[in-house]
Amino acid sequence: MQALRGVIAPNLTPFNDDLTIAEGLYLDHAEWLLAEGCVGLAPFGTTGEALSLGIEERMATLEAMIDRGIDPGRLIPGTGLTALPDTLRLTRHAVDQGCAGAMILPPFYYKGVPDDGLYDYFAWLIDAVDRPGLRVYLYHIPQVAGVGIPPAVAARLHKEFPETVVGIKDSSGDWENTKHLLAIEDFIVYPAQETTLVEGHRLGAAGCISATANLNPAAIARLIETIEAGAPDPQLNEEVAAFRKLLAGAGPIPAQKTLLARWTGDARWARVRPPLAPLAAAQAARLADEVAALPGYRRPAA
Amino acid sequence: MQALRGVIAPNLTPFNDDLTIAEGLYLDHAEWLLAEGCVGLAPFGTTGEALSLGIEERMATLEAMIDRGIDPGRLIPGTGLTALPDTLRLTRHAVDQGCAGAMILPPFYYKGVPDDGLYDYFAWLIDAVDRPGLRVYLYHIPQVAGVGIPPAVAARLHKEFPETVVGIKDSSGDWENTKHLLAIEDFIVYPAQETTLVEGHRLGAAGCISATANLNPAAIARLIETIEAGAPDPQLNEEVAAFRKLLAGAGPIPAQKTLLARWTGDARWARVRPPLAPLAAAQAARLADEVAALPGYRRPAA
Repeated sequence: MQALRGVIAPNLTPFNDDLTIAEGLYLDHAEWLLAEGCVGLAPFGTTGEALSLGIEERMATLEAMIDRGIDPGRLIPGTGLTALPDTLRLTRHAVDQGCAGAMILPPFYYKGVPDDGLYDYFAWLIDAVDRPGLRVYLYHIPQVAGVGIPPAVAARLHKEFPETVVGIKDSSGDWENTKHLLAIEDFIVYPAQETTLVEGHRLGAAGCISATANLNPAAIARLIETIEAGAPDPQLNEEVAAFRKLLAGAGPIPAQKTLLARWTGDARWARVRPPLAPLAAAQAARLADEVAALPGYRRPAA
Repeated sequence: MQALRGVIAPNLTPFNDDLTIAEGLYLDHAEWLLAEGCVGLAPFGTTGEALSLGIEERMATLEAMIDRGIDPGRLIPGTGLTALPDTLRLTRHAVDQGCAGAMILPPFYYKGVPDDGLYDYFAWLIDAVDRPGLRVYLYHIPQVAGVGIPPAVAARLHKEFPETVVGIKDSSGDWENTKHLLAIEDFIVYPAQETTLVEGHRLGAAGCISATANLNPAAIARLIETIEAGAPDPQLNEEVAAFRKLLAGAGPIPAQKTLLARWTGDARWARVRPPLAPLAAAQAARLADEVAALPGYRRPAA
């Protein structure tokens, strides 16, 4: 299986005053991320507020990206909801749009479900999608979803459907878990942070799908270049990690959006959909100051 | 606000071999529950595997109930999903069908969200539904959803929208929380268990919306009659509680479905949708024996 190798951004979703998706701005940002060095995009992830977007909105926005000329072969949209029929609808749509893959959450409402139930959910889904072009990337983010995908379930799915369940995004932040996943043969693993790129590369990770890539794509892409060339740049590595650390402490989604709003002068970036709430003005100002003071960080010209 | 007072069943959802909803059996069960003494039904709750049912399935099944002749004034369907547009669609549909209310989960994907974000979600929803007939029952089940509705948020919503946010179902099992809710003036509170009916009645609860009512509706209804007549039947109270306790320990949804399958001889009752898994045969047999041995419990003629 040919993976997208490099940095992939789970691109953010800006909103108009009435909280509809600001589509033009959304598309501009997506194009900018690819131009800055992202090898792909993972629209409708946690960072993109996917679970606050309606099914129809998600499908329309994906189509708009492709209409704009973005290669669907660079897109791995999130398609996982809690119910099989709804997940089926989004997943089949993504395949029919020619997307490189679909990133699929486990069904996350019922908690403490058995491994067999998780396995059966994905097996049923794959059977129902019924498209040879389906490539599933499992999406493991237990601290948000409340339900994870244990490595044993991932391995079993990959073994049963080797051409279909091709990889996983591990957003757990638990490096031991990531190492278990990296030990699965021919399995594509995307850690969710750019702070483990050096060891990840050594262990066979395909790059990363990182929220912070929304603001810092070029530096992460350059770092990956130095790693792949066999000479990781230690200073760049530190700078990239420092930026990540600052953002992670601040409530990542509203924090990133407030920075984009300041840098672009476009208030649509500052909005979030409930149940999230925007950063308070004082907190936003302090964060912008802290970012400006980071050594080596150059605010991107968005 | 005129509440449905008594026992309300969050009715179970049977499935065909291919895991589509067994509609005829679903409707038969719904009618049976009302005939046995349920004052209303709460279709598409946690017990009804609502979060494993698709949006279209939920709307079609609600319409089928009403087409069958069930009074929508007795129905409080669940309509809460994680995203405002999807929740809006189900909620507006329920209002347009003339339902007594809509039982609405908080947006449950993003965790640790601020109270203001929860409030804004419901305020935005009420504005967008834009129907004077909307009656919202908040649905508090934090141990499953991973996100609850704090009493302060419930009180604020009821104060701001007194004719619309009329009540809450408290499935937390935390009686201290229920008492906080019962202290909100003119607020309809449904505890989720039939084991607190006596004290609930004293404190002004409207009855209960209990999963176990799917199997034990007549006994719970009779108990409520004795409580409302001022002379709670202590033996009936104990029997009802013993049945509840037995079921609660067994993984409530698969356990109830396996009992219904045995009692009716209809295998469609035993099926659950992934990620849930059915009870193992030995466990199901043991449960059936334990129920049969309960003093005073009469298996309903379904």
